[in-house]
Amino acid sequence: MAKIEFDNDPHRRFNPLTGEWILVSPHRTKRPWQGQQEKPAEENRPQHDPKCYLCPRNERAGGVHNPDYKSTFVFTNDFSALLPDAPLGDASPSPLLKAEGARGECRVICFSPRHDLTLAKMEVPDIARVVDTWADQITELGSRYKWVQLFENKGEAMGASNPHPHGQLWACDFLPTLAAREDACQREYFEANRRPLLLDVAEEEIKRGDRVVAQSEHWLLLVPFWAVWPFEYLLIPRRHVRRLPELSSEERTDLAKILKEGLRRYDALFDVSFPYSMGWHGAPTDGQEHAHWQLHAHFYPPLLRSATVRKFMVGFEMLAESQRDLTAEMAAKRLREVGGL
Amino acid sequence: MAKIEFDNDPHRRFNPLTGEWILVSPHRTKRPWQGQQEKPAEENRPQHDPKCYLCPRNERAGGVHNPDYKSTFVFTNDFSALLPDAPLGDASPSPLLKAEGARGECRVICFSPRHDLTLAKMEVPDIARVVDTWADQITELGSRYKWVQLFENKGEAMGASNPHPHGQLWACDFLPTLAAREDACQREYFEANRRPLLLDVAEEEIKRGDRVVAQSEHWLLLVPFWAVWPFEYLLIPRRHVRRLPELSSEERTDLAKILKEGLRRYDALFDVSFPYSMGWHGAPTDGQEHAHWQLHAHFYPPLLRSATVRKFMVGFEMLAESQRDLTAEMAAKRLREVGGL
Ligand SMILES: O=P(O)(O)O[C@H]1O[C@H](CO)[C@@H](O)[C@H](O)[C@H]1O
Ligand SMILES: O=P(O)(O)O[C@H]1O[C@H](CO)[C@@H](O)[C@H](O)[C@H]1O
Repeated sequence: MAKIEFDNDPHRRFNPLTGEWILVSPHRTKRPWQGQQEKPAEENRPQHDPKCYLCPRNERAGGVHNPDYKSTFVFTNDFSALLPDAPLGDASPSPLLKAEGARGECRVICFSPRHDLTLAKMEVPDIARVVDTWADQITELGSRYKWVQLFENKGEAMGASNPHPHGQLWACDFLPTLAAREDACQREYFEANRRPLLLDVAEEEIKRGDRVVAQSEHWLLLVPFWAVWPFEYLLIPRRHVRRLPELSSEERTDLAKILKEGLRRYDALFDVSFPYSMGWHGAPTDGQEHAHWQLHAHFYPPLLRSATVRKFMVGFEMLAESQRDLTAEMAAKRLREVGGL
Repeated sequence: MAKIEFDNDPHRRFNPLTGEWILVSPHRTKRPWQGQQEKPAEENRPQHDPKCYLCPRNERAGGVHNPDYKSTFVFTNDFSALLPDAPLGDASPSPLLKAEGARGECRVICFSPRHDLTLAKMEVPDIARVVDTWADQITELGSRYKWVQLFENKGEAMGASNPHPHGQLWACDFLPTLAAREDACQREYFEANRRPLLLDVAEEEIKRGDRVVAQSEHWLLLVPFWAVWPFEYLLIPRRHVRRLPELSSEERTDLAKILKEGLRRYDALFDVSFPYSMGWHGAPTDGQEHAHWQLHAHFYPPLLRSATVRKFMVGFEMLAESQRDLTAEMAAKRLREVGGL
């Protein structure tokens, strides 16, 4: 085996969940930056904003008024990308131009009535209520749709058009491209090893420790070996769980705690409300068992070296392969050691 | 076959070059936008900027001075992500954590000595010189590396840290993830049909016409049926060409013309110097024939509805599947009909 030093030599790492390679260039972490600067998110928000269409009692598109909700609040997205009554079937104009109808539902989940909060700033019992809402929604939509994609876009840098703490659900009658890829990779590993891939990864990472950011009785939070985004997280339950609704009440409270810890570390890193897209992946809700699946959440934050300098996934990354400078181990170390929590 | 109207019903389209599906939501094109606004690129640049490290005669990182170049100028990237003498071989700490050494070279290509130009604004003979430089670089680096990724990041929105017209080359001793995917899909199609996939696509699209933006004797410029970015282009030679250096002198001049036309249409669309990442894909330079490959360029521009509102590839897109609102046909129509050329 060649002597390759991860913190010094350019190398590639393999993501067994997607079958993709990532180029790592650790020698390049000292490159100066002269390009675009993000403007950090505005920090002084009121508890209730009369102009926010997600705050309690306010008016939304189409003239509907939100209820005076006290905890979480779920409604159908006023600009849903998927519709429950769309026509279905093959729609290919020719064998080379393949298309098909797509059906689904899009919902918005307000995490809190408070306009000024974020998941990181909410109290653990309130975050646990968000987890319960996530689970209930996946149960309900999962009874009618094959895949329920739960996600949160946080921060203007991640396309969030409203800072009120909220996430989204897009339920689909098809298995989306990236879900299908994770499904195939996990199935292949399970068939060869009779163990879920991510449980073996979790066990190995706990033993090694250098990519772990936080762990609890039921959860493991780490920067995965194959991370693409500078401070990417993978969050995994430590026992075999296929879907979010299977979590026990104790596991949900424990999840609320580790979520809060992970997100507070993000905010503390550059002393800014950290932007990210996050989302859950669990076994398809198509009525099959899917023993090869392990529930997990991905966190993809764009910031690279400060509140204003982000990583751009452009030229080489869009055309050839994902690339990063900082290694996963350097990122995990910084997130573990961050002060001011 | 179900009656699905592409300009009205949500549907999915298949990309035969990568094997990925894309979700299209045409009913959503009228959604209001309240999120982040890009700042349009600064337009009044001098012909020579004393502070630009790409302008002729100026100093670069490390104290080197650029020559007083008059046409194109190529040099080794001062912050190369890949290095020619990096250690090679397997570097996996365990079977689940797979890694390998990576070797390569990164270069910068200045397209013109003029700081104030862009490819769209350059004269056709000068663009043809850029094409010649691209071809020469691929020939030289391709004799030593399996894959030469040529690309341009244009505009701050695409991570370009300097507005001086320039592109990059990252030569790799490995086949990058996306290159391997296109290689596999083209090989499979060729084995089944004995014709290069993209030549059949080109023929069909010329017949149909509704996604064509421009065509010439030797080239076809279209918004592909499976486009992800709102105004994405695919540029294909009309005869079977595997790699850029194979282009005849006539085909190169014709390429310069259609490049200029396509980029002027971009600039005219929102009356702004249009940001994009573009790059070339050709057969791997590993000494094999690769008859299944067809040379092509991708253009991925981020703008969605104006000079300041971009499409965000975030939550659903990062976790599930690429999504767009505007259809490829609507985009092609707007690009064909754009005024002020
Ligand atoms: O042009 P630069 O400054 O080398 O860098 C730019 O392009 C690279 C290749 O796509 C990316 O990895 C960087 O994130 C981006 O800022
Ligand atoms: O939250 P919004 O406004 O619906 O939209 C945001 O998330 C969607 C799902 O990831 C993306 O398709 C949009 O581009 C983004 O702006």
